[in-house]
Amino acid sequence: MKPVYNFSAGPAILPRDVLLKAQSELLDWKNQGTSVMEVSHRGKPFMDIAAKAEQDLRDLMNIPTNYKILFCQGGGRAQFAAVPLNLLGHKTTADYIDGGYWAHSAIEEATKYCKVNAININHIHPDGMKGVKAMKDWAVSDDSAFIHYCPNETIDGIAIHEAPDFGDKVVVADYSSSILSREIDVTRFGVIYAGAQKNIGPAGLTIVIIREDLLDRAHLHTPSVLNYQVLAKNDSMFNTPPTFAWYMTGLVFEWLKQQGGVKGMEARNDEKQALLYKTIDENDFYINQICAQNRSWMNVPFQLADNSLDALFLKEAEQEGLQALKGHRAVGGVRASIYNAMGLDGVKALCDFMNEFARKRG
Amino acid sequence: MKPVYNFSAGPAILPRDVLLKAQSELLDWKNQGTSVMEVSHRGKPFMDIAAKAEQDLRDLMNIPTNYKILFCQGGGRAQFAAVPLNLLGHKTTADYIDGGYWAHSAIEEATKYCKVNAININHIHPDGMKGVKAMKDWAVSDDSAFIHYCPNETIDGIAIHEAPDFGDKVVVADYSSSILSREIDVTRFGVIYAGAQKNIGPAGLTIVIIREDLLDRAHLHTPSVLNYQVLAKNDSMFNTPPTFAWYMTGLVFEWLKQQGGVKGMEARNDEKQALLYKTIDENDFYINQICAQNRSWMNVPFQLADNSLDALFLKEAEQEGLQALKGHRAVGGVRASIYNAMGLDGVKALCDFMNEFARKRG
Repeated sequence: MKPVYNFSAGPAILPRDVLLKAQSELLDWKNQGTSVMEVSHRGKPFMDIAAKAEQDLRDLMNIPTNYKILFCQGGGRAQFAAVPLNLLGHKTTADYIDGGYWAHSAIEEATKYCKVNAININHIHPDGMKGVKAMKDWAVSDDSAFIHYCPNETIDGIAIHEAPDFGDKVVVADYSSSILSREIDVTRFGVIYAGAQKNIGPAGLTIVIIREDLLDRAHLHTPSVLNYQVLAKNDSMFNTPPTFAWYMTGLVFEWLKQQGGVKGMEARNDEKQALLYKTIDENDFYINQICAQNRSWMNVPFQLADNSLDALFLKEAEQEGLQALKGHRAVGGVRASIYNAMGLDGVKALCDFMNEFARKRG
Repeated sequence: MKPVYNFSAGPAILPRDVLLKAQSELLDWKNQGTSVMEVSHRGKPFMDIAAKAEQDLRDLMNIPTNYKILFCQGGGRAQFAAVPLNLLGHKTTADYIDGGYWAHSAIEEATKYCKVNAININHIHPDGMKGVKAMKDWAVSDDSAFIHYCPNETIDGIAIHEAPDFGDKVVVADYSSSILSREIDVTRFGVIYAGAQKNIGPAGLTIVIIREDLLDRAHLHTPSVLNYQVLAKNDSMFNTPPTFAWYMTGLVFEWLKQQGGVKGMEARNDEKQALLYKTIDENDFYINQICAQNRSWMNVPFQLADNSLDALFLKEAEQEGLQALKGHRAVGGVRASIYNAMGLDGVKALCDFMNEFARKRG
């Protein structure tokens, strides 16, 4: 069978080795004669892998001991509510950086709970390329409880690679689509959260990394399942966790360590993104209008100069085993999501196809 | 290999045929060359199985068209907050029936959002057997927004088999541990909810069945991921759903249909529970003090008359492949959870072991 390359924006590709291992032990995990899905989260076998997954993530991201790691449910959307509910404390205002679809969705949810100081950072360069303003030009307010931003916008293909430095301000980042893709300094953040379904594991699990001193200010009306302090006190087992997703996530973390950790991923992702953007830029047939410093390494949207060829491009790509390349309905065109589990071979196959398609139809 | 029987209270046993099917297609689902975990929830292949799972549940439980079925995250604990947030409307009081650990946990969460009229229904019969009061004796208040109860208490082994009839009152039931185990009349309820990890599928999915007219009264501060109306409007895809758990759940529903549906399960569960309670009652060696009409069909806790033998019982059971029988730490002793996926053969094996253990040690 021809290899298949899955460019889905999420739920997304998982490492094949992880899927093979899960398959091999799906009915008989740890020689117990049962599936990992069938055992209590409070039994030692599961507790062991849960703790190992946490430690592996701590190692991978170099997370200091004064940060808790929570395994939650509800995805980024649940965090859009959880962040203001947990972090406002006595304050009533929060700074929300508006740089794309997901950042904006977070703002919509936050307006239920606080006065949102929405800061539009979209920026068009003199040459017409799109990007976002540098952090030093973000109009952050004095009295806000925190600054929220989304470092990678999956639909727009815009990324903020700059490391935040806002003094004592609590910085919160929705890293759903770029966590573990390159090295970051966790100590710059108060809270990092990420839905699992891009770079971590199957949909249904959300990771929250939170500085311990921020666990003291949840609103009394915060649902317990969204209350960081409750989750932290109970080692993320206040409610029954999504055990299979947690197990899979642990396998992904092990795989990441085998691949050289986040440093290894960063090198591979850099090579992947460089090749794909080069293919786009060197070919008048394809257009991506995001400026170099804000190009996403994970989600690469592009247009065909002649968009009447979109459907044909997608159809022929599919026939070549290049799957799920259709752009988001809001922007059309093509989008290649090239998360950690996508190898350089997949990006090469895509670029070869793009060059060949342009040669034939250009 | 000797057969293994898994009596875990949850996450719990899944039908072996379901696990085998999931295993066989884990890396190549629908001949796509990818896993079901790796595809978009908005693509046709996934949307099709999501819709089929919903329809199958509708068929299995005979759910009328004026009820919505929601696929959520967060388990029963998330619903403990979601119920008052969604259903109080302009009212400030709710009736909460307190009949055990889970009913009580729901009360603790609800006190954040409303005045709880907590109704203790525990009852000790003249012969010393424990049970709960009949529904006609529940001291429901006039001005409450709804009545909440838990028909099956997993720790206490107490069940309420009576069908509710409270006139126009909205009845809400936490069916996490007994949904699909026997036939119920859905029209008696305003809302039925259930965490998946007992009778439905893997942990990480929660089913909510809600009468449409109740979708109009959510509190403005309800997190969107817990807002029934938002979820209903978006066909449970407001946020990325736990796709693999949803897929597994669909397989379980197909399996249930093959087993004769809920009617078939009810007959099998009746046979299982009758055999197990008979073994307990006919043997002075074992004690279960729940009265006949309130005995759980799903979770059967019992004590050894000589509790110094508990550890030996559990150890020898484990050696016989009878797993996860340790009673909840709150009550000790033994607990056999015999959910839908546990066959009569498993209960027979347990009863044979119990008889033999009593013969040897009694």
